[in-house]
Amino acid sequence: MMGAASTLRLRRRMSKTNAGNFFEDFTVGQVIEHATPRTVTEGDRALYGALYPSRFALSSSAEFAAAVGLSPAPVDELIAFHIAFGKTVPDISLNAVANLGYAECRFHRPVTTGDTIRTRSEVIGLKQNSNGRTGVVHVRSTATNQRDDVVIDWVRWVMVNKRDAGSPAPETVVPELSAVVAPEDLVIPEGLDFSAYDHVAAGEPHRAGDYTVGEKIDHVDGVTLTDAEHMLATRLWQNTAKVHFNTEARPDGNRLVYGGHIISLARALSFNGLANAQLVAAINGGSHAAPAFAGDTVYAWSEVLDVADTAAPGVGALRLRLVATKGRDEAMVLRGDDGKYAAGVLLDLDVWVLVPR
Amino acid sequence: MMGAASTLRLRRRMSKTNAGNFFEDFTVGQVIEHATPRTVTEGDRALYGALYPSRFALSSSAEFAAAVGLSPAPVDELIAFHIAFGKTVPDISLNAVANLGYAECRFHRPVTTGDTIRTRSEVIGLKQNSNGRTGVVHVRSTATNQRDDVVIDWVRWVMVNKRDAGSPAPETVVPELSAVVAPEDLVIPEGLDFSAYDHVAAGEPHRAGDYTVGEKIDHVDGVTLTDAEHMLATRLWQNTAKVHFNTEARPDGNRLVYGGHIISLARALSFNGLANAQLVAAINGGSHAAPAFAGDTVYAWSEVLDVADTAAPGVGALRLRLVATKGRDEAMVLRGDDGKYAAGVLLDLDVWVLVPR
Amino acid sequence: MMGAASTLRLRRRMSKTNAGNFFEDFTVGQVIEHATPRTVTEGDRALYGALYPSRFALSSSAEFAAAVGLSPAPVDELIAFHIAFGKTVPDISLNAVANLGYAECRFHRPVTTGDTIRTRSEVIGLKQNSNGRTGVVHVRSTATNQRDDVVIDWVRWVMVNKRDAGSPAPETVVPELSAVVAPEDLVIPEGLDFSAYDHVAAGEPHRAGDYTVGEKIDHVDGVTLTDAEHMLATRLWQNTAKVHFNTEARPDGNRLVYGGHIISLARALSFNGLANAQLVAAINGGSHAAPAFAGDTVYAWSEVLDVADTAAPGVGALRLRLVATKGRDEAMVLRGDDGKYAAGVLLDLDVWVLVPR
Repeated sequence: MMGAASTLRLRRRMSKTNAGNFFEDFTVGQVIEHATPRTVTEGDRALYGALYPSRFALSSSAEFAAAVGLSPAPVDELIAFHIAFGKTVPDISLNAVANLGYAECRFHRPVTTGDTIRTRSEVIGLKQNSNGRTGVVHVRSTATNQRDDVVIDWVRWVMVNKRDAGSPAPETVVPELSAVVAPEDLVIPEGLDFSAYDHVAAGEPHRAGDYTVGEKIDHVDGVTLTDAEHMLATRLWQNTAKVHFNTEARPDGNRLVYGGHIISLARALSFNGLANAQLVAAINGGSHAAPAFAGDTVYAWSEVLDVADTAAPGVGALRLRLVATKGRDEAMVLRGDDGKYAAGVLLDLDVWVLVPR
Repeated sequence: MMGAASTLRLRRRMSKTNAGNFFEDFTVGQVIEHATPRTVTEGDRALYGALYPSRFALSSSAEFAAAVGLSPAPVDELIAFHIAFGKTVPDISLNAVANLGYAECRFHRPVTTGDTIRTRSEVIGLKQNSNGRTGVVHVRSTATNQRDDVVIDWVRWVMVNKRDAGSPAPETVVPELSAVVAPEDLVIPEGLDFSAYDHVAAGEPHRAGDYTVGEKIDHVDGVTLTDAEHMLATRLWQNTAKVHFNTEARPDGNRLVYGGHIISLARALSFNGLANAQLVAAINGGSHAAPAFAGDTVYAWSEVLDVADTAAPGVGALRLRLVATKGRDEAMVLRGDDGKYAAGVLLDLDVWVLVPR
Repeated sequence: MMGAASTLRLRRRMSKTNAGNFFEDFTVGQVIEHATPRTVTEGDRALYGALYPSRFALSSSAEFAAAVGLSPAPVDELIAFHIAFGKTVPDISLNAVANLGYAECRFHRPVTTGDTIRTRSEVIGLKQNSNGRTGVVHVRSTATNQRDDVVIDWVRWVMVNKRDAGSPAPETVVPELSAVVAPEDLVIPEGLDFSAYDHVAAGEPHRAGDYTVGEKIDHVDGVTLTDAEHMLATRLWQNTAKVHFNTEARPDGNRLVYGGHIISLARALSFNGLANAQLVAAINGGSHAAPAFAGDTVYAWSEVLDVADTAAPGVGALRLRLVATKGRDEAMVLRGDDGKYAAGVLLDLDVWVLVPR
């Protein structure tokens, strides 16, 4: 581990600026400690509320959070996720061609204001593509707080450019990943108790048992994207990918919206119909099916994939497919007859959320 | 009250998403507890300062606030108002055709960071329109903090669509409302003391006695609106009205600027000439005379309507007409000869503010 | 001092609004206490991170700050600078034709959340221009915190319109200013200790000794400006100059980007290659070589002008020329053969930064 980190540092010493890592720079087992620990503040909470139409009572109200056993009040899990993820970009995906997927993302404990988040990643898979010019890198990333408690871990895989098409291919290693986090493996925040849950404050009466597998929910509302807003968000997470900020970084002159912006938007829109899905416990997988740009109007719908119990008092879990679309699709169609994503699908995310049961 | 709330919950249970209430869903005496309590943070204060050119010393400086008897430092009253108001939108005005007016709005106590705001509304008036398709709903809304202290209350009335034009009209009830909050009914924040007021820090020398009834003040400065900014603001207050966020929600493809955004902009611009109007104590009434959109440049002027004393040491009150215009009107004309609002008038707000006397 | 302040107050009493000061309103020795003290919050820190791609560990992480001896964690020095500077605008530069330069800016002590900043300025130079219509005003401004400790002081000079071209010229006074703050005059924050500096957290391995005089660093990344973002920033600092906010304030209908926005952008972009330049200790001088507008893509490069030691453990200093450009200039050319700034140069700033040695 130290050896790998030293190698990276050595390479960087050659020029002052960081050009990011290429496929050849990764080796299986390598551990990268990402830069810039980041302290979470009440400012992040407010900005999140300005950027996304989130109204979940637990992250909105310190009183509600305390009443369900969480005090001090946690920030939205996706604030923690975006910060943790952002740290990996300069080392993992600065030269990425595509973000291919996520798996096994679990939220281990709430993050609250004053917590400082660090992230490290271990390379767990490498596979050169047959074109010889790119390869797929799998990393398991782990975010910790200032007490070295794990707060989130997740796997993602990205297609990365090679520096030199002529360099030899590494041994192929493709990790085995779970398609779904098993409900018994979900980590329930310590102290969480929904047994005296306040549905009036939360805004909807639905409990876990009110949802049925296969049910689809049209979240109705739409938000038209602006460049200023997605840049503010992406920068807040210290995500440095050029395509989000620089009109000169893509041939079409558009700023590509950070995929996580769409995740947060869809999650916030899902309040209307899933107001009691107070916490995200896991991301089982996800695909960014199409790019999004300023001017697009984003809607969301959900499909209930599973309903489960947890050991915590009053706490159930829903496994949801959360879909973001460009333009509203009241029919809520994910894929066409050809098996490909339907036109307009931007995001297909598979998550576990915690609800009163 | 519980009965009414239960009815609402029952209706909602039929589908997972909230389609908002229609005219038929309201009955006089009905009390609605609005969802999503919201804790105010220092992030809200900073965002308010980024969104509006506010420079009032009391909400800018904890030192100034403490020196006039308010510690911890309150946030701008309009932060509290917008949050409290936003909570009512999903239940009261999601299907509103128009916001018709405000009355009897009083600020009962300062809101500071850490306070959690809830709002409930009582239906106090119902009148079906002669077209049979819409009706006017009057509600008195009350915002409380985590100690159940009232922080703001106000009346507003909105024109709401009927679900079914054929449904019978309710008995007409139109509440009697005061045209103006009497100066002796203004609530002065406990401890407020302007007797050692620091005019240098506040930025202007004018005291209550320096203003004369009928005097008009051109606040000089203008701000050109952007979509990103009004959406950030409106979302921060958890206001969910579709027309503010979604270019597909209106035939003209424009995002309508939240009326409260214009209120805050006008109030902030009024610093230049009213720098000592440190607190808003009441909103006597108000009309949004015309819609505003990105690209409009908003200016403000004020007319002094009354000057009064209060029982608090050194504290006087000014009743002001605060007018926002699209484009600057140095002549400060409110209405044309036909009695209609002059072209360019966006907002006509009647407020009491507290100033050193 | 009181006499001058009284004169200003008297003049203002004539009309309620502040039209700003003209050249005739300034006298050498005059001291102006600027309005609106401003308390810094965690919201400012978060907004700064949303507005600028800053990743310096010291202002990002309370843990990192504490580990180098600074606890509570300071906010970015430029937050303090912009707030302190913004206060001077209504009195000094509301009628300015041009901001001509900065000198002798030193950061005396860190600013942290909860600190309240005030600024006062002393007029130290006056020179009427030969056209008789404008003059140059030099002011030394001093920002203090709530304990009256100096936090920043600096000199700037601006060209200001005369109210009346016929009024007599004042005696010409042009202050002598240092071209560079001598390294021994840099104020190192009390307690700062880089002897156990964490390069992994900071993101780069380079120490003072790794930089050589004359070395140029291309910071690689670019950010395309939006109107919403620069207005949010400029408003946050309570800077009231009309040209930043109002499309009707300039003949071309553009909103001019506040020069300080470009300073912060360039400083944040310089992370890539100067990640260990944790603190700005002084601004020796600076010019805004060209205006910037929404749609411009801003890049930055630096040139090392000097390397020095300080008395603090492990702390060295770099004197840098920090250049912002519209469009990337990989050749990093400051001036053409004619001695004028090369096309595309927006900012030429001469700063001292503190780095591990």
